Amino acid sequence: MSEKKKIFKPQPVSGFPEWLPEVRAVEQQWFDHIRKIFESYGFCNIETPSVELLDAIKAKGGDGEADVDKEIYVLERYHKEDGDKEARLALHFDQTVPLARYTAQHFNDLVFPFKRYQMQRVWRGERPQAGRFREFYQCDIDVINVDSLPLHFDAEMPAIIWEVLSTLPGMENEKIQIRISNRKILMGFLSSLTAKDSQGNDKKLSNEVTAEILRDIDKLEKVGLDNTLTNIENSFVRKGYALGSQDLIKPFLDTCKKRYPTGEDLQDTLTNSSEIDTSNVLLKEGIKELSFVLDQLSHLPEGAVVADLSIVRGLDYYTGTVYETVFLDDPGYGSICSGGRYDDLASNYINKNLPGVGISIGFSRLFDRLRQQYKLPVGRISPADIMVMMPSEDRRALTMETAQKLRAQGHKVETFHNPVKLARQLAYAEKKGIPYVWFPPFEDGKSHEVKNMGTGTQTAADPDDWKKD
Amino acid sequence: MSEKKKIFKPQPVSGFPEWLPEVRAVEQQWFDHIRKIFESYGFCNIETPSVELLDAIKAKGGDGEADVDKEIYVLERYHKEDGDKEARLALHFDQTVPLARYTAQHFNDLVFPFKRYQMQRVWRGERPQAGRFREFYQCDIDVINVDSLPLHFDAEMPAIIWEVLSTLPGMENEKIQIRISNRKILMGFLSSLTAKDSQGNDKKLSNEVTAEILRDIDKLEKVGLDNTLTNIENSFVRKGYALGSQDLIKPFLDTCKKRYPTGEDLQDTLTNSSEIDTSNVLLKEGIKELSFVLDQLSHLPEGAVVADLSIVRGLDYYTGTVYETVFLDDPGYGSICSGGRYDDLASNYINKNLPGVGISIGFSRLFDRLRQQYKLPVGRISPADIMVMMPSEDRRALTMETAQKLRAQGHKVETFHNPVKLARQLAYAEKKGIPYVWFPPFEDGKSHEVKNMGTGTQTAADPDDWKKD
Repeated sequence: MSEKKKIFKPQPVSGFPEWLPEVRAVEQQWFDHIRKIFESYGFCNIETPSVELLDAIKAKGGDGEADVDKEIYVLERYHKEDGDKEARLALHFDQTVPLARYTAQHFNDLVFPFKRYQMQRVWRGERPQAGRFREFYQCDIDVINVDSLPLHFDAEMPAIIWEVLSTLPGMENEKIQIRISNRKILMGFLSSLTAKDSQGNDKKLSNEVTAEILRDIDKLEKVGLDNTLTNIENSFVRKGYALGSQDLIKPFLDTCKKRYPTGEDLQDTLTNSSEIDTSNVLLKEGIKELSFVLDQLSHLPEGAVVADLSIVRGLDYYTGTVYETVFLDDPGYGSICSGGRYDDLASNYINKNLPGVGISIGFSRLFDRLRQQYKLPVGRISPADIMVMMPSEDRRALTMETAQKLRAQGHKVETFHNPVKLARQLAYAEKKGIPYVWFPPFEDGKSHEVKNMGTGTQTAADPDDWKKD
Repeated sequence: MSEKKKIFKPQPVSGFPEWLPEVRAVEQQWFDHIRKIFESYGFCNIETPSVELLDAIKAKGGDGEADVDKEIYVLERYHKEDGDKEARLALHFDQTVPLARYTAQHFNDLVFPFKRYQMQRVWRGERPQAGRFREFYQCDIDVINVDSLPLHFDAEMPAIIWEVLSTLPGMENEKIQIRISNRKILMGFLSSLTAKDSQGNDKKLSNEVTAEILRDIDKLEKVGLDNTLTNIENSFVRKGYALGSQDLIKPFLDTCKKRYPTGEDLQDTLTNSSEIDTSNVLLKEGIKELSFVLDQLSHLPEGAVVADLSIVRGLDYYTGTVYETVFLDDPGYGSICSGGRYDDLASNYINKNLPGVGISIGFSRLFDRLRQQYKLPVGRISPADIMVMMPSEDRRALTMETAQKLRAQGHKVETFHNPVKLARQLAYAEKKGIPYVWFPPFEDGKSHEVKNMGTGTQTAADPDDWKKD
């Protein structure tokens, strides 16, 4: 009756990670930990569907990352009937597009400021390549308000993220740093400049050359100051400005080399620079906002949070505060947690002004990094604290009853499934790493006993009233 | 610079549910509750990718449900480059196909019996229709072993499920019943029959007519005894048997009308029936196994678990114990939690005999039913227990510090973001349903105070040492 089935090699799909139970146990600890801290700041959780309408996803390139279009996964029903006219669906590639749709759709049912966290998988259909995930978790917090959003929340984000990242199991000894800037500073500086065009006439910087320069500055940490200056010069020339124009930007790049732990440091440096026009309104506003944020974070350990004026984070999306987070001993690894302030969450959905500020932990990438470096704590193969032995078939009911009593005390309990030789039962508990083995009495009148598998100690015990060592 | 964007109506996608924060809070309670109970029985968690290879998904029709093929969602990269030759991926439609692949792939790294739970979304690309989800959560537990699997686990499944379903928030007053059968009983009975063909010759039942009869019996509860007998008669005639053959099945259907709370009840009825051949080896084995399972569950409340011999649950997949779970006051709603024993989890992946037993809660469908019936507990809009007021701008630091002290005590704390009028701050706490409001002192030397928003009582309190009423 059953035909011979084709055998498929059970292979992993490139870019779609999965873990053994003992690693998944640690991943669960991470999620629990992050959730606990997010909630301790009053953020509620939401979950959105895995899909949005393709048209809506295409309309928004996400938080400024280039070419996200290329990474969209579209769903197709395998057996679509002819004539089915359904809107095309796509898996979300971030949690910002879903948040915008959610906030607009449920606008009248939400209380603002709307503080939400979201820990879901996102999908990016890139070409498969080593070390790049196509399915991964992000953990996002955002605060959305109507019309205006207090700076309080720009300062709350790094405080929360610091607490999360510095206490995640396995992360305790990692040296990380949250770097903050305010886009208004860089944009204000650039808008204050006048360069010469190729005919030698004075000319404000065009939007096009500004965009190029932002891209160049974004790579400062990666390529270094000299290369950045060359790149900026090339951008100027390409867009019709005179050779040597990069000298206009150099004073700003010099300020980028430093890290500013306090608002005072930042203001001192910028206002003392003779080559930066600090009278620019936008730049002044940026300095003031960034100083406020830094000052609110003065309770964090030294070096936890600094200002870094070279942070750009995309071109269009962020309008004020921007964040990145790096490993200090491996800054080339890139940011593990980024975000910023945006003016306009959902204008393609709703005729409301909804400014917000948010930050996102690249959960799976970070978790996998620590896993590969053997820095994660060792997880348990079984969640059970206790395994109850089965002494004999006619003591099966007693075995089950004992386990139920221990569960009622809050313990996690496995029962051995058959009255085989005790050595085999013990070997199973050992293989699963279960720390205690419980012996119901072999005959009436005898006492229960419990063995600590770590120390080997075995003592009499009462299943209605027992506590772990 | 910014063009006028197209406005999309932010509408829900049919079949992809999402909840407001206060409903999501209850959904999280449900997941926490289920996880806690699954782990209290020693089940570890795994999570598999959302996708499997399309070929692997197609090869396995799931747990016997018809036409799952039609429901497969395939992924396509939106901008696939020409010449990309990638294996096609599909979203999983259940957690059995992924479990089979996972167990085979990680076979050498798992400890058997492998007891795992899995709580993930699954996808079924059906035509959109009212009340049918295309994306939903399932919560599965399975035990897999090599070569043989003790019946112990067949009995453990309903015990766990009873504990979960009878204590889920909002389910406490629902009358549910877990119904169990063993496929060997029905298969043994059918294999013992001899019917007349249309020429009047004795003939064993063919596989084809057996399959039809199983489908007919599967609908017994829905269509009633008389219609079932008519359907069975039609099946016989269609497959070349004599009119009147349904009389062979009737004695068995009569036994199906009853529910058997104990193994003894079941054995009495079947062995006393003169029209059922209880000497059939398969049938005898089924009765013995089902009796063992029932006897292991005798500690559960009366009516929690009964034998129901009409349960079929698909044609090919299950080989022994089968489970369904119904609302006693709405049996037509169908099963909310189903499963059974299978001989052969992963033979299309690995040359090993891997029998298993598992059961699956249709989480989202059940949750949404209770939501629509207003039976869920009322969830919190904000997880915060306390909102700390901000008395004035120069007390901002004190506000933050107070909140940190309260968090250090384990409380969930929101701070109000700006020193606006106290009435506005209070109104926000009230709208978000935060039960306590904390007042840092307006001037030095005064005490902190805390207000219970439920009772209105306001008392002096110390942020380093305060407990909820």
